[in-house]
Amino acid sequence: MSRLVEPLAFLELDGGGPRYGQIRRALLGAIGTGALAPGARLPTTRDLARQLECARNIVLLAYEQLVLEGYLTARPRTGTFVSSDLPRAPVANGRRQSSSGKDRIPLAPSGQRLAEASSQAWAITRRSRRYSIDFMYGQCEPDTRILRHLRRGFGNVLHEPFAFEYGNPAGDATLRAEVAQRLCGTRGVARSAEQIVITNGAQQALDICARLLLRTGDQALVEDPGYEAARAVFRAAGAVITPVAVDAEGLNPAALPPRAARTRLLYVTPSHQFPTGAILTAARRHQLRLWARSRGVFIIEDDYDGELRYHERAVRALAGLEPDDHVIYCGTFAKSLFPSLRLGYLALPDALVAPAANAKWLTDRGSSGLVQRLVRNLMTTGEYDRHIRRMQRRYLARRDALVHALTEHLGQEVEIAGDASGMHLVAWFPRLGPSHLDALVAACARRDVGVYPIARHALQPLGRAGLIMGYGLVDERAIDRGVRTLAAKYRKIRPA
Amino acid sequence: MSRLVEPLAFLELDGGGPRYGQIRRALLGAIGTGALAPGARLPTTRDLARQLECARNIVLLAYEQLVLEGYLTARPRTGTFVSSDLPRAPVANGRRQSSSGKDRIPLAPSGQRLAEASSQAWAITRRSRRYSIDFMYGQCEPDTRILRHLRRGFGNVLHEPFAFEYGNPAGDATLRAEVAQRLCGTRGVARSAEQIVITNGAQQALDICARLLLRTGDQALVEDPGYEAARAVFRAAGAVITPVAVDAEGLNPAALPPRAARTRLLYVTPSHQFPTGAILTAARRHQLRLWARSRGVFIIEDDYDGELRYHERAVRALAGLEPDDHVIYCGTFAKSLFPSLRLGYLALPDALVAPAANAKWLTDRGSSGLVQRLVRNLMTTGEYDRHIRRMQRRYLARRDALVHALTEHLGQEVEIAGDASGMHLVAWFPRLGPSHLDALVAACARRDVGVYPIARHALQPLGRAGLIMGYGLVDERAIDRGVRTLAAKYRKIRPA
Repeated sequence: MSRLVEPLAFLELDGGGPRYGQIRRALLGAIGTGALAPGARLPTTRDLARQLECARNIVLLAYEQLVLEGYLTARPRTGTFVSSDLPRAPVANGRRQSSSGKDRIPLAPSGQRLAEASSQAWAITRRSRRYSIDFMYGQCEPDTRILRHLRRGFGNVLHEPFAFEYGNPAGDATLRAEVAQRLCGTRGVARSAEQIVITNGAQQALDICARLLLRTGDQALVEDPGYEAARAVFRAAGAVITPVAVDAEGLNPAALPPRAARTRLLYVTPSHQFPTGAILTAARRHQLRLWARSRGVFIIEDDYDGELRYHERAVRALAGLEPDDHVIYCGTFAKSLFPSLRLGYLALPDALVAPAANAKWLTDRGSSGLVQRLVRNLMTTGEYDRHIRRMQRRYLARRDALVHALTEHLGQEVEIAGDASGMHLVAWFPRLGPSHLDALVAACARRDVGVYPIARHALQPLGRAGLIMGYGLVDERAIDRGVRTLAAKYRKIRPA
Repeated sequence: MSRLVEPLAFLELDGGGPRYGQIRRALLGAIGTGALAPGARLPTTRDLARQLECARNIVLLAYEQLVLEGYLTARPRTGTFVSSDLPRAPVANGRRQSSSGKDRIPLAPSGQRLAEASSQAWAITRRSRRYSIDFMYGQCEPDTRILRHLRRGFGNVLHEPFAFEYGNPAGDATLRAEVAQRLCGTRGVARSAEQIVITNGAQQALDICARLLLRTGDQALVEDPGYEAARAVFRAAGAVITPVAVDAEGLNPAALPPRAARTRLLYVTPSHQFPTGAILTAARRHQLRLWARSRGVFIIEDDYDGELRYHERAVRALAGLEPDDHVIYCGTFAKSLFPSLRLGYLALPDALVAPAANAKWLTDRGSSGLVQRLVRNLMTTGEYDRHIRRMQRRYLARRDALVHALTEHLGQEVEIAGDASGMHLVAWFPRLGPSHLDALVAACARRDVGVYPIARHALQPLGRAGLIMGYGLVDERAIDRGVRTLAAKYRKIRPA
C-alpha cells in the first residue's frame, strides 16, 4: 500500500528532458510552493516510482541530486526529508512569491519576466553535480603553462599605473586594440579598437544588445535547437521568440519568415552552431545577410568558440563578409581561456558603439580592470596566441579520441555530427527514443559518467535522440573510459 | 618658421603623467571635438615639438601610439594624418546618432533612454584628467601590504578546485557567508549568507534592483544632492525621479511626499550621505522606515563607505534596525579595497533573493570567480579585517590633515561638513557664488590641483558654493600643498 504524503499525490512531471530531471523539478516545485514544507518526510523511492510508473532508480537519482543540492536530507534508516534549514526561496524558482502572501514582493511585470526567463534557462544549464568523467560542454580548464603566465602576470598588473581605478567602461584601450587586431586576422572582422566593447562574458554582451535594441512585442529569431541563455535575454527584454529550424548546414534560411513584421534581430552561431555543431555554409551566410539587410534586421553573431577549429579553411565570420552595419559580433574568453574570467566582447557597428559603452557604464561601470589587464598582457606578449595553438592541439587530440571511441565502441549505432570545431560534438542515436535516452543518461550517471541530452536546448521536439558531448573537462583516457561505459549501458537499453 | 595647422595652435597639455601621454590625450581631444577632422594632416613632429617646447622624440612617441591605436595614419614621405575611417562618435558622446542621419540605428525607446541616462551621469563623474594633487572622491589606492597578499593569494586561487568554472551566479558561497557575517558584526545587518548576492560593484547591484522593481512611470525618490549613477539607473528603468532635499542631518523626512502614488523606491545613503557627507540621525532613520513601510516603498540603502568611520559610535545600517523586508542593503569593495576589482553585494529581503540571483545569471552569469575567490581568501584569513583597520588609520590621518589644512589656510572662509566618515568631506565657501567657484576650480586646475564642485550632483540649485574633497588619492603632504594652492587662489578670487 502506498502511503504517499498528500501533496505528492498529484505530482506532475513537465515532460522536458530526462525523467529524473522532471522528477527533481516537480519536487522543487512542491518545495517552492510550500506544498512540501521544511521537515516534511518524502515518500519512499519505491512508492513514488510506483505512482509515477517509472524505475525506482530514476526516483533515487532525483532524490540523491536534491540531497546533494541541499534541498533534501537523507536520514539513514528513517527516510528522506525536506531540509529544515532551506533557504526559503529556492533560487531557481520564482513562483514562491506568488503562492505565499506573507512576504510577497510584487516585482514589476518586466522584472517578473526577467526572473522567469532566467530561471527557465538557468535550470537547463546548471549541472546538479560534477561527474568523475564529465562530458559537460561549454566548460574547460586552462593548462599549467598559461597558469604560470597568469600568476606572474598578476604581479605585474598590480604594479601598473592606474591599475586600481575605474577605467573606460568600454574597456582597456590596449585590450580593445588587441581584440580588434585578432578579430581581423583570425575571423576576417575588420572593426577598429574603438568598435570593441569589453563585457563580462558573452552573456552580458547579449544582455546589452537586447536592452538597447528590443522593445516589448518585437520578434527575436533564434536557432532551434539553440542557446537558451540568448533566448532568455531576448525574452527578458520583452521580445517574442521565434524559432528557426537548424539542419546539418546550420540555420536554414528557407525557414526564415518571408515577412519580418516587428522582427528586430536574429541570433545565430554560424561557426559552430550551438548545440548541433553545424557550420553555416557560405551560401547560407550570404542568403542570411541579404535577408536581414533587406529587412533592417540586426544579426547577432555569437562566435563562442570560433578560435577552436579543426577543419582546413577558416570560414570568415558573418561580420567579416563586408562592411556591414547590421551584424553585431559577440566573442568570449570563456572558451579560449576559461569561464571564471568572465570576459567577453562586442565588435559593433559604429552607431552602436556609444550606446553600448553607455549601457556598459550604467550596468557596472566596466569589467574588472585587473582581469582585463591580465588578459591584455597575455595578448601583447604573444602568450595568448601560443595558448590558443596549444589548445587547438589539445582539443583536436580529444576530438579525435572521442570520435575514435564512439566509432569503436558504438559503431553503426551512433552518428557523429558537429565535430569540425569547438569543444563539443553531437552523438545521435538513430535507434533510441527519448525515453531510452533518459534511461541511458541515468545509467551513465550511476556509473559517475555525465552525458547530456541535446533535447533540452530545443523548443520544438527534435524527433531524434542525441547527446552533446563536450571534451573541455575530459582527457583522452577519460574519454575512452567514458565512452566504454556509455556503450555498455547503451547495449542494455537499446530496443531489440 | 612653424607652419602649424590651425587647430593645434592652441593645443593645451593637461599636465598629468608622462609628457607623451599628455600630447596623445591633447590630440585625441582635438580629434574628438572635430578640431582635427578625419583626413587632416598633422604638423611634423619637429614643428609640434618646437611649439610645445619639448624633445621631438616625445612627440614622435605620441604619434606612434596614436597610429597604433588607429587614430592616426602615417604615410611614408607624406606625413601623418588623422585616420579617415575613424569612428565618428567619440564614445562618451551619444549625440552623434541624432546629428548624422546616415547610419543612424534606431534604438528601442527604452534603449535610447538607457543610453541617455547613462551618458548624462557618466559625464558628471568622468575626470578629464588626473592632477598631480587630486582631491577626486570615490577613488582610492590600496597599500603595498594588501598588494602583497593579493599577489600571493592569486597564486593560491589558481590552484583551487573548480576555480575556472562558472560558479553560482549569486556568488561564491564562502564569500557570501563572510560578507553576511561582517555585515552583522560591523553594520548590525542580520541577513544570512543566502540573502547575499555578489555583484560587479554597487552599480550592478542598483541596476539589478531597478530592473526587478521598477516599471515605466513609477516614482523613484532620491536624495538631492545625490548620487547621479543611481538616478541614471532608475531613469533607465523608466522611473520618474523625484528629488528629496538633504540637510546637515541627511535626507529630510519632512520633505518626503505625504502620499506616495506609484512611489516604488527610495534611494538613500544614510551612513555618509553622498555627496554632502551628512550622517542620517537616528530619529530620521526611524521616521524614514515608518514612512516607507506604511506605504510599501522599498528603501535601497547604499552603504558605499560604511566601513570607514571616525566617530565614536557606529550607527547601525537602516537594514539592521529590525527584520525588515523593505530595506535592500547595497555594499561595495570599491572603497574598502579598490574600484577596479568591480565587486559589490546586495543583502536582500528573502523574497528578492531568487529574483536577484536570476537577474544576475541573466546579466552576466555571475561575477568573476577569480576575483571573488581572491577577496574571499582575504576575508577568511583575516587580512581584510587588518586592511580595513589600516585604512581607517590612513584615512583618519588624511581627514585630520585636510581639516587642519583647510582651517589653517582658509580659517573663517570655509565651513567643513561631512567629515565624520568615508573618504571625502565637503568644504563650503559661504562668501563665494557659483561663478566664483568655477573660477576657483579652473585656477586650481592650472596649478595642477584637482578640486570638484558639489553642485554637479544636485538636481535643484544648491544656493551655496562647495567643493567635495576626496582624500583617497592624496597623502598628508599632498593635502597640505593642495590646500595651500586652493587658499592662495581663493584669496585672489574672493569678492571683496
